[in-house]
Amino acid sequence: MEESNYQDIIKSIYNRIKEEGNPGETAKYISELAKVDGNKFGVGLKLLNGQQFGEGDYQEKFSIQSISKVLILALAYRTLGEEIWKRVDVEPSGNPFNSLYQLEADKGIPRNPFINAGALVVCDVLIDLSDNPKKYFLDFLKEVSGIKDIDFSYDIAKSELETAFRNTALTNFIKALGNIKNSPDEVLDLYCHICSIEMTCEEVCETFSFLANQGANSSNNKVIISPSQTKRINAIMQTCGFYDESGEFTFRVGLPGKSGVGGGIVAVMPKQYVVTVWSPKLNPKGNSYRGMKFLEDFTTATENSIF
Amino acid sequence: MEESNYQDIIKSIYNRIKEEGNPGETAKYISELAKVDGNKFGVGLKLLNGQQFGEGDYQEKFSIQSISKVLILALAYRTLGEEIWKRVDVEPSGNPFNSLYQLEADKGIPRNPFINAGALVVCDVLIDLSDNPKKYFLDFLKEVSGIKDIDFSYDIAKSELETAFRNTALTNFIKALGNIKNSPDEVLDLYCHICSIEMTCEEVCETFSFLANQGANSSNNKVIISPSQTKRINAIMQTCGFYDESGEFTFRVGLPGKSGVGGGIVAVMPKQYVVTVWSPKLNPKGNSYRGMKFLEDFTTATENSIF
Amino acid sequence: MEESNYQDIIKSIYNRIKEEGNPGETAKYISELAKVDGNKFGVGLKLLNGQQFGEGDYQEKFSIQSISKVLILALAYRTLGEEIWKRVDVEPSGNPFNSLYQLEADKGIPRNPFINAGALVVCDVLIDLSDNPKKYFLDFLKEVSGIKDIDFSYDIAKSELETAFRNTALTNFIKALGNIKNSPDEVLDLYCHICSIEMTCEEVCETFSFLANQGANSSNNKVIISPSQTKRINAIMQTCGFYDESGEFTFRVGLPGKSGVGGGIVAVMPKQYVVTVWSPKLNPKGNSYRGMKFLEDFTTATENSIF
Amino acid sequence: MEESNYQDIIKSIYNRIKEEGNPGETAKYISELAKVDGNKFGVGLKLLNGQQFGEGDYQEKFSIQSISKVLILALAYRTLGEEIWKRVDVEPSGNPFNSLYQLEADKGIPRNPFINAGALVVCDVLIDLSDNPKKYFLDFLKEVSGIKDIDFSYDIAKSELETAFRNTALTNFIKALGNIKNSPDEVLDLYCHICSIEMTCEEVCETFSFLANQGANSSNNKVIISPSQTKRINAIMQTCGFYDESGEFTFRVGLPGKSGVGGGIVAVMPKQYVVTVWSPKLNPKGNSYRGMKFLEDFTTATENSIF
Repeated sequence: MEESNYQDIIKSIYNRIKEEGNPGETAKYISELAKVDGNKFGVGLKLLNGQQFGEGDYQEKFSIQSISKVLILALAYRTLGEEIWKRVDVEPSGNPFNSLYQLEADKGIPRNPFINAGALVVCDVLIDLSDNPKKYFLDFLKEVSGIKDIDFSYDIAKSELETAFRNTALTNFIKALGNIKNSPDEVLDLYCHICSIEMTCEEVCETFSFLANQGANSSNNKVIISPSQTKRINAIMQTCGFYDESGEFTFRVGLPGKSGVGGGIVAVMPKQYVVTVWSPKLNPKGNSYRGMKFLEDFTTATENSIF
Repeated sequence: MEESNYQDIIKSIYNRIKEEGNPGETAKYISELAKVDGNKFGVGLKLLNGQQFGEGDYQEKFSIQSISKVLILALAYRTLGEEIWKRVDVEPSGNPFNSLYQLEADKGIPRNPFINAGALVVCDVLIDLSDNPKKYFLDFLKEVSGIKDIDFSYDIAKSELETAFRNTALTNFIKALGNIKNSPDEVLDLYCHICSIEMTCEEVCETFSFLANQGANSSNNKVIISPSQTKRINAIMQTCGFYDESGEFTFRVGLPGKSGVGGGIVAVMPKQYVVTVWSPKLNPKGNSYRGMKFLEDFTTATENSIF
Repeated sequence: MEESNYQDIIKSIYNRIKEEGNPGETAKYISELAKVDGNKFGVGLKLLNGQQFGEGDYQEKFSIQSISKVLILALAYRTLGEEIWKRVDVEPSGNPFNSLYQLEADKGIPRNPFINAGALVVCDVLIDLSDNPKKYFLDFLKEVSGIKDIDFSYDIAKSELETAFRNTALTNFIKALGNIKNSPDEVLDLYCHICSIEMTCEEVCETFSFLANQGANSSNNKVIISPSQTKRINAIMQTCGFYDESGEFTFRVGLPGKSGVGGGIVAVMPKQYVVTVWSPKLNPKGNSYRGMKFLEDFTTATENSIF
Repeated sequence: MEESNYQDIIKSIYNRIKEEGNPGETAKYISELAKVDGNKFGVGLKLLNGQQFGEGDYQEKFSIQSISKVLILALAYRTLGEEIWKRVDVEPSGNPFNSLYQLEADKGIPRNPFINAGALVVCDVLIDLSDNPKKYFLDFLKEVSGIKDIDFSYDIAKSELETAFRNTALTNFIKALGNIKNSPDEVLDLYCHICSIEMTCEEVCETFSFLANQGANSSNNKVIISPSQTKRINAIMQTCGFYDESGEFTFRVGLPGKSGVGGGIVAVMPKQYVVTVWSPKLNPKGNSYRGMKFLEDFTTATENSIF
């Protein structure tokens, strides 16, 4: 496809969707997220050749939430290597994202690193890997994204910690099952901070471009993770990136991706591009309503999916 | 990659694996399958440009079993269109392949068309679509594969029907939940016949090449299903093709594929090729031990996966 | 309590309940049961001293359905002894009465003999114990009840067999799990016949009086089962007699008992009496609405429960 | 039965069991309990006429653990009345005692007050009912038992709190589901203290005699709860007192009772007596091995159960 056409396609789909209804609800359980304007809508696209495109609120920061789970996995995988898969599996869960039942059946090994249970275990791993895991993660984020002043959103983290009863339950339950080594409180604190990161669509594209680029930073070509590790993280995004709507996303969009309850979705076309959509209203399964719609139309219009 | 290299890569991986151990068990519950020599091992590859490669027992027929589930889905999807998704979902199951529990929770809508429950519902659809569903399926098979004399293996179908207590349970259970319209006995009979098809690795590659070729027969370019339908079937293979090892296959191999308890696995590299492996000994999750291994090594050696 | 008062108490409670609403639905899934007048209401009481009381439609026959499960258990237990507990457990299920999930987890051993799965296994035992299990059961029924002309209701059995998809699923599933020895069709046929028995409240009291009388027929004192066996059957009725409302029945009524979807409930006060209520409209958990209510008020008014 | 015979029966069964093996393990997860001598064995019996019998270590204090759950239920039920059943159900769970899955399905309403989830909710109720719930419970304990100097075992409570990951998970999970009003930490603290009570077999009999005596203290006849409330608590002990071995206990022993992981079991014969056994080694379901055995033999020898 002519690169000059990308902006036209994005604009056209964006405008059509913007005129349609915007059903769904913004996430209510975190007070800071509940305040966000539900009609915000932004799209960013970054090609590996460096070209960038954007539409709508693509330069406004939003809470990336679970999108961070991909980044902590990349960091832990880079350092720990294949050992990480002893602590967390790579299977889709087929169940709502907080299911304690499945965890009980699986003896504390979370189904995959992108359900909450799995990300909590990855946080536990990071605590073992560093004396200052928060700084360790921020340094990685800077390395990957090239953004120098990135920091946690302490208000969002605090707001999340205060009502994190379900995640507290999960963490203590995994601890009881033997797959968390550190104190549940420390794990939860790291988890809530990691989820609190705010970025623009443009910045998310920049940050995730190493996953389109076989593991190397697309700006300076420094290797972050190996091509094989990159393939595997993309594979897990493909099968597990959207909770119990992962099959649906693969079916409709056909790209590996990851969503967050802040309404962001990032998707990766290996060797070609990263695309990020932000629209805070969520469908009943907890994924951005307009985000899902935009990406389906986008891969249909570009006739370009991994399948 | 140079096409001339494919044969070398296949031969090299094939020989290495053949020298290693071959743990696992052949499927025992169907007496006809239990008789098969567990050390049979064949690999076939067909490029879209028409070139074909093979190694070992790649010209020997084996029972393709659940691999047929992709073909009945393609047939039903072609005829019924998107209506088919009201009868069966597209989510990975995250549970062992015969789970009745999940079906109960999902009110009779099977998680996807590649678990037994889903394929039984697709059989029910075929019975509604044709007065002679067995002939209807064989005709489709001939159209897709170009094989003129293909027929059911009536001995295997009979052997399977005699001990099909679990599938009888499944069918009656879905009937009770309202998602099977015809008589359970008729559905089971069709299902067992469809699973009884025997093909060589070479023939499976031929049969599945329309899924690599955006829906068109790769020999004569006649359209079988649309590019969009092709993408969707490949997507479902990616997330659901290996029961509760689907994530693992995606993670290790990185291609959409489908396995059968006869020890066959077919995998599709969109726009490039179809590869089929047959080795009857199964790992604990019911997928061919050597088949999984070969394909992982093959996509690693060719540095070529969808991710 | 003065025995002369029983009739007054029964009459008073009966009349009060009759004037109140009668919510709920008659069982619809068996066409023969769906035809029954939902406002039928009868109560029978038999003291061990031989006195009998009745009110309303207590001399009208109704389909006792699952109440038969207690009788086949008594017959199988008498013949097989403690061996029976290798085939079926004695724990309450805590789940809806047809749960296939629990059966899967318990490897084919039903939780107790009063859920459908358990009664199907008991039927399988009866087939092993007799060349003519239907006659074997009818003979036992005559011995226990003293009713000479008792027979199956062949219309109800046929009506039930025609739509027994869920029970067919259950039977085949247990067969697949190895805990049914005979052909699923034979087991289902016996099960549906056993459930088809029709009796009046008066006759049910007569039939069950051996369970109040330490195992001996209360008319002729012939031993049917031992006191220890009697205690155990009563204990299982106490914990498992009302599907997932067993705790509620124990809590409200405080007597061992058993219900059927025909709207009958029998309850036993050991060493004192048997009481039977029939009212076809069922509460959401499948137990007679007025039956539950009558028995709660009856044990409250007589200040007489096992607790 | 002649009362003079009770001592003979107890002594004879006690001695026989003492000579047999004592398989099983003492509870290991609480360090204070793990220190207890596994061969301790005591039996106490109190008749409502005031006679008391004992054998072995019946005057040695042991940690009554979950036996306390009956006492907090009695206290909360007395104060709150039938409202309590909006917060906790009365059905047997049919699942291992800490199942989070069932709680998820039941939307935060625990199956019954004798599983951990249920007792945690009852603790939450006590916190609402009193400014000083610990003193409130100790005062009730003194009223019921007549023991003046009773207090918590602060070491056991502390030991339990330190490793209460599973109960922390449960409490936070119920909080997330909306059925805990106070802070999870406060609820857990009360729960662990309540479970830490230590008593002798003799004292447990004294404490529970109101449940044999229709709700009145058997020493001074002061009403603690009503006869109807007593019947209901006994009924719940019958169906739910032994986790997923409740059916087995009812089947073998035939009395309402409650066990604790300290190895104690109390059982109530309404209108006649309370019997308590203590033996720390537990069977695989978490109930005292010798306690279960003693009580089965005792009700068999006295030919006296509620059935």
